[in-house]
Amino acid sequence: MTASPKSPDAATQANAMWGGRFAAGPDAIMQAINASIGFDQRLYAQDIQGSRAHAAMLAAQGILTNKDAEAIGEGLLTVLSEIETGAFPFRVELEDIHMNVEARLKEIIGEPAGRLHTARSRNDQVAVDFRLWVRDQCDAAITGIEALIAAFLAQAEAGADWVMPGFTHLQTAQPVTWGHHMLAYVEMLGRDRSRFVDARDRMNECPLGAAALAGTGFPIDREMTARALGFDRPTANSLDSVSDRDFALEFLSASSICALHLSRFAEELVIWSSAQFRFVRLSDKWTTGSSIMPQKKNPDAAELLRSKIGRILGATVALFTVMKGLPLTYSKDMQEDKEQVFDAADTLMLGLAAMTGMVQDMTANRDSLAAAAASGFSTATDLADWLVRELDLPFREAHHITGALVAEAEAQGCDLPDLTLEQMQAVHAGIRANVFEVLGVENSIRSRTSYGGTAPDNVRAQVARWKTALSTPEKP
Amino acid sequence: MTASPKSPDAATQANAMWGGRFAAGPDAIMQAINASIGFDQRLYAQDIQGSRAHAAMLAAQGILTNKDAEAIGEGLLTVLSEIETGAFPFRVELEDIHMNVEARLKEIIGEPAGRLHTARSRNDQVAVDFRLWVRDQCDAAITGIEALIAAFLAQAEAGADWVMPGFTHLQTAQPVTWGHHMLAYVEMLGRDRSRFVDARDRMNECPLGAAALAGTGFPIDREMTARALGFDRPTANSLDSVSDRDFALEFLSASSICALHLSRFAEELVIWSSAQFRFVRLSDKWTTGSSIMPQKKNPDAAELLRSKIGRILGATVALFTVMKGLPLTYSKDMQEDKEQVFDAADTLMLGLAAMTGMVQDMTANRDSLAAAAASGFSTATDLADWLVRELDLPFREAHHITGALVAEAEAQGCDLPDLTLEQMQAVHAGIRANVFEVLGVENSIRSRTSYGGTAPDNVRAQVARWKTALSTPEKP
Amino acid sequence: MTASPKSPDAATQANAMWGGRFAAGPDAIMQAINASIGFDQRLYAQDIQGSRAHAAMLAAQGILTNKDAEAIGEGLLTVLSEIETGAFPFRVELEDIHMNVEARLKEIIGEPAGRLHTARSRNDQVAVDFRLWVRDQCDAAITGIEALIAAFLAQAEAGADWVMPGFTHLQTAQPVTWGHHMLAYVEMLGRDRSRFVDARDRMNECPLGAAALAGTGFPIDREMTARALGFDRPTANSLDSVSDRDFALEFLSASSICALHLSRFAEELVIWSSAQFRFVRLSDKWTTGSSIMPQKKNPDAAELLRSKIGRILGATVALFTVMKGLPLTYSKDMQEDKEQVFDAADTLMLGLAAMTGMVQDMTANRDSLAAAAASGFSTATDLADWLVRELDLPFREAHHITGALVAEAEAQGCDLPDLTLEQMQAVHAGIRANVFEVLGVENSIRSRTSYGGTAPDNVRAQVARWKTALSTPEKP
Amino acid sequence: MTASPKSPDAATQANAMWGGRFAAGPDAIMQAINASIGFDQRLYAQDIQGSRAHAAMLAAQGILTNKDAEAIGEGLLTVLSEIETGAFPFRVELEDIHMNVEARLKEIIGEPAGRLHTARSRNDQVAVDFRLWVRDQCDAAITGIEALIAAFLAQAEAGADWVMPGFTHLQTAQPVTWGHHMLAYVEMLGRDRSRFVDARDRMNECPLGAAALAGTGFPIDREMTARALGFDRPTANSLDSVSDRDFALEFLSASSICALHLSRFAEELVIWSSAQFRFVRLSDKWTTGSSIMPQKKNPDAAELLRSKIGRILGATVALFTVMKGLPLTYSKDMQEDKEQVFDAADTLMLGLAAMTGMVQDMTANRDSLAAAAASGFSTATDLADWLVRELDLPFREAHHITGALVAEAEAQGCDLPDLTLEQMQAVHAGIRANVFEVLGVENSIRSRTSYGGTAPDNVRAQVARWKTALSTPEKP
Repeated sequence: MTASPKSPDAATQANAMWGGRFAAGPDAIMQAINASIGFDQRLYAQDIQGSRAHAAMLAAQGILTNKDAEAIGEGLLTVLSEIETGAFPFRVELEDIHMNVEARLKEIIGEPAGRLHTARSRNDQVAVDFRLWVRDQCDAAITGIEALIAAFLAQAEAGADWVMPGFTHLQTAQPVTWGHHMLAYVEMLGRDRSRFVDARDRMNECPLGAAALAGTGFPIDREMTARALGFDRPTANSLDSVSDRDFALEFLSASSICALHLSRFAEELVIWSSAQFRFVRLSDKWTTGSSIMPQKKNPDAAELLRSKIGRILGATVALFTVMKGLPLTYSKDMQEDKEQVFDAADTLMLGLAAMTGMVQDMTANRDSLAAAAASGFSTATDLADWLVRELDLPFREAHHITGALVAEAEAQGCDLPDLTLEQMQAVHAGIRANVFEVLGVENSIRSRTSYGGTAPDNVRAQVARWKTALSTPEKP
Repeated sequence: MTASPKSPDAATQANAMWGGRFAAGPDAIMQAINASIGFDQRLYAQDIQGSRAHAAMLAAQGILTNKDAEAIGEGLLTVLSEIETGAFPFRVELEDIHMNVEARLKEIIGEPAGRLHTARSRNDQVAVDFRLWVRDQCDAAITGIEALIAAFLAQAEAGADWVMPGFTHLQTAQPVTWGHHMLAYVEMLGRDRSRFVDARDRMNECPLGAAALAGTGFPIDREMTARALGFDRPTANSLDSVSDRDFALEFLSASSICALHLSRFAEELVIWSSAQFRFVRLSDKWTTGSSIMPQKKNPDAAELLRSKIGRILGATVALFTVMKGLPLTYSKDMQEDKEQVFDAADTLMLGLAAMTGMVQDMTANRDSLAAAAASGFSTATDLADWLVRELDLPFREAHHITGALVAEAEAQGCDLPDLTLEQMQAVHAGIRANVFEVLGVENSIRSRTSYGGTAPDNVRAQVARWKTALSTPEKP
Repeated sequence: MTASPKSPDAATQANAMWGGRFAAGPDAIMQAINASIGFDQRLYAQDIQGSRAHAAMLAAQGILTNKDAEAIGEGLLTVLSEIETGAFPFRVELEDIHMNVEARLKEIIGEPAGRLHTARSRNDQVAVDFRLWVRDQCDAAITGIEALIAAFLAQAEAGADWVMPGFTHLQTAQPVTWGHHMLAYVEMLGRDRSRFVDARDRMNECPLGAAALAGTGFPIDREMTARALGFDRPTANSLDSVSDRDFALEFLSASSICALHLSRFAEELVIWSSAQFRFVRLSDKWTTGSSIMPQKKNPDAAELLRSKIGRILGATVALFTVMKGLPLTYSKDMQEDKEQVFDAADTLMLGLAAMTGMVQDMTANRDSLAAAAASGFSTATDLADWLVRELDLPFREAHHITGALVAEAEAQGCDLPDLTLEQMQAVHAGIRANVFEVLGVENSIRSRTSYGGTAPDNVRAQVARWKTALSTPEKP
Repeated sequence: MTASPKSPDAATQANAMWGGRFAAGPDAIMQAINASIGFDQRLYAQDIQGSRAHAAMLAAQGILTNKDAEAIGEGLLTVLSEIETGAFPFRVELEDIHMNVEARLKEIIGEPAGRLHTARSRNDQVAVDFRLWVRDQCDAAITGIEALIAAFLAQAEAGADWVMPGFTHLQTAQPVTWGHHMLAYVEMLGRDRSRFVDARDRMNECPLGAAALAGTGFPIDREMTARALGFDRPTANSLDSVSDRDFALEFLSASSICALHLSRFAEELVIWSSAQFRFVRLSDKWTTGSSIMPQKKNPDAAELLRSKIGRILGATVALFTVMKGLPLTYSKDMQEDKEQVFDAADTLMLGLAAMTGMVQDMTANRDSLAAAAASGFSTATDLADWLVRELDLPFREAHHITGALVAEAEAQGCDLPDLTLEQMQAVHAGIRANVFEVLGVENSIRSRTSYGGTAPDNVRAQVARWKTALSTPEKP
């Protein structure tokens, strides 16, 4: 993480870059608070990619000779290779990745290195580097989400007709299918995916060429650099290009929502793994033991995934607070954007991978699920619906009668299907024997065939729909 | 805000709605913490709209007689009119808007009212009501943003060639145009608009028919209700439909980003209004006086707009924290969603309106702007670029020479254009007289013609582009 | 919430208060965003209290005649009584509570009303009003926390020796006592109480007399007003007095921590109320039914209490974000402080009251608790400790052997005490029959007599300690 | 940051620590998400300190032989020295600092190492380590704040009578003194200091001996370990001891408030450094240049300090969100506490140091300050007060007359002291020549002698009071 000085000359050279205007050099505290090389070295590939595109464009426009452009392009590849092989001498006194790369380029190719910065500034350079990085993270998030969707779909397909209790308020409400529950997360993740797609589309404009803030008088071709870097178009206002970080905030917001979804399933896994629920068995790969209680099998990964929304939301709040009330254009406050986004992106990608692994490896305990689904008067709604359908009662009246039947069953210490027809008729005389057909859990889930309902055939149809959707790009 | 009981019978009737299961009635604390009618009455129009669509569909599917459906439809219109005229007797013991409407409907039309709740539940009812409300707020945000964009465009057009200092670090950096600065906010707001468009598209699925959580066995037609309520399609998973609030979180996140942009211009207005800057004069409509200092003209509205990101970000954090780690499906925690979104939406819409008013009314102080633009060696970059272009120096060397010239001017107590050619040549012998052509502020801004640059013609072209964009829908 | 104009003259009079400097009156948007009377009317009692203290001091110092001071003092009591009886005509065009009170005072007593504002400003007036209000809320929080502690103590005393599972990772770890679990929350709440005590002490300085920002040349006696308002002393710097809101931030932070503690017990109540746990039965007073599932008994109050940390944390983030980067002294942004603190304080007080009611009314299901405590190899640690104590094994080795015994029991489908001595000795030959003494749950809890441990006698001693602590002030 | 495996045996040994219960080893993702050694190695000194205290106590109580205890104590010192010299082989597969230290201890001293964990658990071990670390950070914060207070006091003393404008709404309000402005921050920082003192006091209880969660049956002496580690007493409830992290939240909250205060002065420095204000000149040590605009002197350090509240508030939100709704006792989610607190503490300490350096080095531009103080009708309040005092007008009337005089001066294009007596008398006939005495800036500041007011003598008295306060401990 730390960067060590290569030679005594390096610092002198570094200061020389801003000209001789400063009498005193920054001391240790200033270096500690000001230098970004400790973290922005993660942008090295983007920085070199951007500089290569810039140099090629300068040559194409005749601002740079082809010879100089070639030397720069080759030299940057050497720098890239040095960094990737660990041979690159990062220097903290050069402050940031941009100066580190350029200074090394100068050592390698000499004078032409000083021509690379023509018609650009650190402001648009950092803007393009960071935007490329965040754009890559959108792609990584999309890929990670798709893998997790696939894992949920496999669970949904296997358990399209496994019954389990559907909860509200963590109270048994109605029977549902395992597959349907899995698909609920597929829907959430599907929206998460589309949020990253939208965010990527919106940020995919190239700030390079905004220069310090006002654009430039050199005859640059911003369409060319934009195209070379995979952007849809150049940005339309140079002040905005170097001032705003809404693309980072949108990435963080989308990440927070996605992490929130992960936290919800993680909570379910923790509860479902308890001795009291036993709904699911997590693989040993995702649990740990206890140093003092050898019998424990702790759902550590699930707990960590439950927590990660905190970390990502914290990063989101941090960047919003940093950007609040900043006048245009670039202010140094904005240097805080990177560590927050780096940490949030790492956390999200790791979280998606871990959750994918856990979902792939988890085993539903079908017996516990089925037993829980059948208890707790879970088909009371089916009974109320039967009263509406068969006896033409208003729903509110049917609901009231069902309440009385539940109370009777509670008093008898039994469940609804265990009441006799006579006991039922004592509550409402019109009840007939075919009522028992709707009181079974299997009948209940099979009956819920409304679009989006829990019936096994619905689940299978949705799995098929999603498999097709995953194999086609969101926005062709 | 408070709702008062209509009659002694109301409470009895309310309890009767959940059946006779509860021995003890909720006491005052429970009512205070549990009842939502104090705030969810804002959903009355959506609630009635949803119920009317539901009843019409039940009739079309033969689940309800046409006569009953008609009675319900008419009765709901009566309720609507009672609420809008202030005649509606809200009852806090009926807890929420849904029960208040239904109970009143029963008083008006009698027994058929009890049939309205067939094949639905409060869970999908609240989901559809709230989604309709948030969708409306997306539309309101889009409209509000467009009005503010129009106000900035008018300023940009008027001041396409007014010079002002472009700042980085609140230090004069390069001259820019007033119009270009205004357009920076147009770009930010344009992305804000597209975020609300995307959010609206994503949330525009109808949860009605998800019932409590599992769907229903009644032969409902969810396409029909979705269409009737202006949704693109019904939601595909009933558990997800009643569990997730990501549409609200996305609305809040987009609102936070938009409010952040407002906070930045607000900060500029506060600074620009100071006696030291005097860049802008705010209308008396948006400023106030002091109770003790009669000479003050305080930019209160700007300060309040600077602050509102806090309120909206707070609401965002609140809902994320509420939703963190909630197991599926509906939990009562989720009732906290409404007040946060209501307050954030109100704040955003008021903020957009106030900022629009301020931007329309503000007057640029052209003299102060021009004087500031010309000071502080603001054309140093132009000088460095001249050295590169005319003398073919590497940028880094040109930069170093410019630094020395600035130091010389500082030492002479003058600005760059005030140096003599001899003084300049003492620093670099190659400098020629035509250097003075680039040292003027007007020349500087006119030279920055790269796409997105500050040149007046660029500004005019962007204004034209935006006027066209505003008059066409974002996603046709 | 809305205030309606009393007479056509009111608006004129209001504008007259800032002098005739403003050509145009504020329009509807400005009024909506700027006026605070909609919420700061909650400060009426503090405002009147502060003004009365100020007037009395002015008279004592000879700045006001006794006659005028008396008229002001009496007039303010009249205003107070009008507000408390609902007869007071709040006027939104008078913007805030301070101007509303003063304008009404003028109507009542005439000219001397204009002398009340001598040697003060709205800046120190609002600072003192708000500080008095927040100080009161510290007291209310302390009282509310003490009531909740008492409720937990009553549960702890009753169940000092009831066994239940102690969880880590929601996995059964070791048996503990119900009383010990209740006391864990007493400790948390005890620290919450002391945080509010400290916050109150720190904020208990009187800003009145700071005037607009610089102090005053009138010979005021700030000690006298401080004393009259129950403050420990006057504030020492007038700029700080009107600029900072750290007392509000500290109140919000302490409230967030307290609400976090409530969220944790609320989560336990939700889980414990599930059909799978059945650890506790909540009173009907704090639960509700379902509109479609008559069998449900939903822990609504617990869920709402789980959520409230979101609301309070959101308010905290809001105020931090508002205050971030504000230059001294007063800026209008700071007007946002009140609604956030009002809402957070109301939420906390209601939350404490609701939790107190729930804790008082909840019933532990002793059978479920005991059965759960005995399952899951919960005395494995006791076994490992026995191996250390009796066989002098290193703990790590004892731990390893215990792991093997648990595995053996799992393989046998039984619990630890059900293994035969032979089966145990097959794992480690040194195990003797007295090992069975430590495998019982009752023995386990009774053995944990280390200070702070779960043994029933410890629990009783801590209950006694806390009863004493509650009956003595925290800082005498 | 990464830890590399020492030998192929290490992993086997690591797994062996939880016993042989797990069939499959954790794979790379699990290790990445689960292992904490990457960050919790910062707790090495605290971990060793705690273990040494624990071993000494076990020996004193006869639970460990003196020989074993001595071997452990010595071995731990060897480990400490290895870590401090960089020779220690951190192993990521050993997960955390606790296991790394213990495994190395075993390599060094053999069998007795396994006896160290008697009567404790990782849960109370991590609780004590982290609490010791946070307690140290409270001390560091207190020290850092005191240094910054001293720097502000030096500025205050030097500039006790330098005049500058006091602002509200960034509009000139009244003249104040430089020293008085500096002292405003001293007051804020003084409260910050006392918050850390209170937080330290409250957290200063020793959790060691809580064991996993229930206490222990070994006859440990918790008073002894508490004393040895500098705690005031042992914690009173073992469940609470391993479950709560409110001490970390309180540290974060206090840090957020302190960082907020820094953000406010940082904003002032940025504004004051602008060409338009020129109130202050920052040392070259704390500013930087521009890569493209050689004339710039950017207040980077001030901007970074303005931003740091975002980072610390983000960490605060993160931990609150993580802890929200966690059931007792320890859950793995809580592992997220450390990185947030580490980063926030580092950020705060660096921020305090940087601000101290900047305050020491900054130079007030007395001429600019004085000129600004005299402009903008800054003595209007003094004029109003004169009218009250000399003509016995009600303040509200005096205020109105002053407004008219300001309007007259504005119309004349002059400031208040430049009006002639006749012009004044045209507004109010009673005005006399001695009014001019109060219209001077110097007279104004000297007149504000009320306690806490801006008069130079007040400033000097406060500086003296604070110097005494700094040299005495806050709570003796």
